[in-house]
Amino acid sequence: MKSNDSGMRVNGSRLLEDLEKMKEKTETPGKGVTRFSYGAMDREARDYLRECAEAIGLFVKTDPVGNLFFGFPEDKDKPVILAGSHIDTVQNGGWLDGIYGTLSVLEALRRIREEKAECGKTIQLVVFAEEEGSNFGSTLTGSKFLTGKYGTKDLDSLKNQEGVSLGEILAKEGYSPYDSVMLLDWRRIQGMLELHIEQGPILESHGVGLGIVDRIYGMKVNEFTLTGVGNHAGASPMKGRQDALAAAAAGILEVERCGRELGEEEGVATVGRIQVLPNGSNVIPGQATFTVEVRSANEESIHAIMEEILLRMEEICNKRNIRCHYREVAFSKPDSMNPRMVALLEKTATRMGEPYLIMNSGAVHDACMLAPFVPTGMIFVPSIGGRSHVPQEDTRPEDLIRGADYLLAALLQLADCK
Amino acid sequence: MKSNDSGMRVNGSRLLEDLEKMKEKTETPGKGVTRFSYGAMDREARDYLRECAEAIGLFVKTDPVGNLFFGFPEDKDKPVILAGSHIDTVQNGGWLDGIYGTLSVLEALRRIREEKAECGKTIQLVVFAEEEGSNFGSTLTGSKFLTGKYGTKDLDSLKNQEGVSLGEILAKEGYSPYDSVMLLDWRRIQGMLELHIEQGPILESHGVGLGIVDRIYGMKVNEFTLTGVGNHAGASPMKGRQDALAAAAAGILEVERCGRELGEEEGVATVGRIQVLPNGSNVIPGQATFTVEVRSANEESIHAIMEEILLRMEEICNKRNIRCHYREVAFSKPDSMNPRMVALLEKTATRMGEPYLIMNSGAVHDACMLAPFVPTGMIFVPSIGGRSHVPQEDTRPEDLIRGADYLLAALLQLADCK
Repeated sequence: MKSNDSGMRVNGSRLLEDLEKMKEKTETPGKGVTRFSYGAMDREARDYLRECAEAIGLFVKTDPVGNLFFGFPEDKDKPVILAGSHIDTVQNGGWLDGIYGTLSVLEALRRIREEKAECGKTIQLVVFAEEEGSNFGSTLTGSKFLTGKYGTKDLDSLKNQEGVSLGEILAKEGYSPYDSVMLLDWRRIQGMLELHIEQGPILESHGVGLGIVDRIYGMKVNEFTLTGVGNHAGASPMKGRQDALAAAAAGILEVERCGRELGEEEGVATVGRIQVLPNGSNVIPGQATFTVEVRSANEESIHAIMEEILLRMEEICNKRNIRCHYREVAFSKPDSMNPRMVALLEKTATRMGEPYLIMNSGAVHDACMLAPFVPTGMIFVPSIGGRSHVPQEDTRPEDLIRGADYLLAALLQLADCK
Repeated sequence: MKSNDSGMRVNGSRLLEDLEKMKEKTETPGKGVTRFSYGAMDREARDYLRECAEAIGLFVKTDPVGNLFFGFPEDKDKPVILAGSHIDTVQNGGWLDGIYGTLSVLEALRRIREEKAECGKTIQLVVFAEEEGSNFGSTLTGSKFLTGKYGTKDLDSLKNQEGVSLGEILAKEGYSPYDSVMLLDWRRIQGMLELHIEQGPILESHGVGLGIVDRIYGMKVNEFTLTGVGNHAGASPMKGRQDALAAAAAGILEVERCGRELGEEEGVATVGRIQVLPNGSNVIPGQATFTVEVRSANEESIHAIMEEILLRMEEICNKRNIRCHYREVAFSKPDSMNPRMVALLEKTATRMGEPYLIMNSGAVHDACMLAPFVPTGMIFVPSIGGRSHVPQEDTRPEDLIRGADYLLAALLQLADCK
């Protein structure tokens, strides 16, 4: 691997324009961006990407579950360096999550085209479908298909809130998901890089513009259902009530306490979703269902903290005469990024004179799915106020451009470009 | 007022059959009864009542907001004793709430017809529309129109969850709500009696089959909105979080504590409804909105306890750096039933040899709206396990028949029947 002396930089204003255009095309005014895979906003975004790619003569390939690949058609026999992210969002999410990394790679490919750089390997942009799990409740869907974690049977078993399967939705959108399932060809792919906003406050609080991820938090999500006795709120004395929401409230505070006891560096515990039945102002809640999500860079911590939460929840329910049931909804192990990739990213930042932070990622990303198969790296830029998955999600323009410049430099290194 | 020596009794099995039929016609199997005013199930119930009434030659009158009146057409110049209840339910409610009192009066009128009783006054069955507030969030709607608490402007301002007004819905159902608003004619009406299930555990716990209400709880409902900072649940350390749901959980426990501190006899405090935004398992909740309902037989207690809840909520929000906003959604004063009516009901029970309990009603009923205008009484029968507003709501058949017999005896007294 030789050093990149070209000092090539992205066209920063073009990148910011792309981001603005994508926002304008797909945001809900005042309510951020809701761009679910396979929906109308997703089609808008795909059309725009395709247009940009074709303008610089890239091939565009869509796989059976909607993952997109863009690359230089003349390089079809070269080894591949993948780079990319996703374009879908959560409900009322922000304007950068996913799309920033995607458009930054597109900009990198444009610059390589413009500079007529000669590379030993070819760089391909990959856009992963349904990363957020907004449709089917399961994150990283596109990258799970690409890496064989999901297969044909999951086309049927993954269902949206209306009970429609992924397979049905794909067929309706014109894909042919049952004809073939596309796995990545690991004989050709030699590396993977993802650039993403941090979605947390660490970089900002350290005043550093670049993060190099060396470890990704693992995660466990349990769904708890507490069943008490629904009853008329006026006619039922306080004594003898079996109020499922009051029990859930006690549980939610214990989840928070367990998270805090973990310590800042060791993980988090969150109740993000709750549903109460019958949810009437004049009825004592008979049932409360809520999710408990525990994340940590340490797998043992995840299990230990969830065990502790289970114990405290049982205690609460016993005391309150409430039935407590739970089921595991999701689990992923903590994962390490490739040490050689981390070293290459450190060297690139040092050469550019950019301060960086080696850090954990609390969020899980598509890159994690590829990490077991190929040297994989992950780059973060700061999030203002650490906010993400909300309309207020933002990053300073200079940080966005710095991140894209850094990604380009790292890609040129990885692809042996002159 | 002369004594009722007739010993007239209802036809118990006919009453139970009516109740069963009404349940069969309008329940959602496994999910109790959801019979909202102005909906399909409500039309089923009204058709059945009309059929039964016409079979014994009663007139049927529907007023502009859907209140129903049934009576003996030949008695049109006699003073009126009103008796009745409602037929609408909450979402997934029980099979007895409202409809039991309604069908019991219908059975009483049948028996009076069959026995050719001669009465100085005439007994009319009144069926109040939209008692539960299931459509428009405001309870006692029909009786509020009948007593002038609601007027034409409320036809426009009361809106359902889809934003459709009461006036529009009534017009679509074939009513002419804007033509005239029907107020009760207090010159003719000389009394009002409502029979209802208790919806609480007091009668059952005392092993007594009849309750005579002498006081109705007042009620205050505030809606609280707590606003924190929504964020990615994985990437945001515990420290510095502004989790609106965790703050709400602390608040919900304080509401429960305040309710308990009130003491069993003095009132209740309940959080029945909560909504969280964005409500995703992997997002720290940015906003939580919930209702706090306080009820007591003592008006000062209601205000004092709500003040205390406000203080505790502010303290929680200050400590957690959460914005707290609240608005009053509903308020009704505690009210007393007419003492002469209570005395007449006591005497009737004593003559029948039936044990009874003088009690508060935690729930508010249509009868309360009429109480300021005319001597009004309210009779309860036990609820099994004290449960109501849920599919499991039930009352033993012998208790149902006892209540109807007692209602008939009291009505014969009130109407000076021979």
